[in-house]
Amino acid sequence: MEWTEIMGHVGAVLSSITFIPQVLQAWKTKSVGDLSMNMLLIVITSTVVWLVYAFSLNLLPVIIANSIIFVLSAILIYFKLTFKEAPKK
Amino acid sequence: MEWTEIMGHVGAVLSSITFIPQVLQAWKTKSVGDLSMNMLLIVITSTVVWLVYAFSLNLLPVIIANSIIFVLSAILIYFKLTFKEAPKK
Repeated sequence: MEWTEIMGHVGAVLSSITFIPQVLQAWKTKSVGDLSMNMLLIVITSTVVWLVYAFSLNLLPVIIANSIIFVLSAILIYFKLTFKEAPKK
Repeated sequence: MEWTEIMGHVGAVLSSITFIPQVLQAWKTKSVGDLSMNMLLIVITSTVVWLVYAFSLNLLPVIIANSIIFVLSAILIYFKLTFKEAPKK
């Protein structure tokens, strides 16, 4: 396997797991006031766009990465909507 | 231009601007306790990996997107290190 191909896979894995620490921290602290809802909405929208793109070109790594990011960002949006803390203005 | 190509560009733009609302909110509220430092470290690491990948394959859109995300995540890491609020445990 070419080293660039390896870099691509490493990049995809890192991108996929990006939001795992954020989900764990939010779950532990039940505090998400500092998280930007607009950011999360952009993230989930971008994963839908990337999923349409990847399915049409049959790009399995992109499908897997963005499916994971979609689920994680959906969880964070759920936390934003359900945890009581008012966003800091 | 093929519609898949358009989706790719839309996805790249959305991915690039993901952290802009988070940077703006953090700057406004000076409160980043709920942001996961581990997430930010993964983000900035992944952008370095994607930049090495993109430079070696000459993928301009990936270079542009990840340069923007690199700068934005560096700003958020700076905010995490400098804003006084202790992370919520």
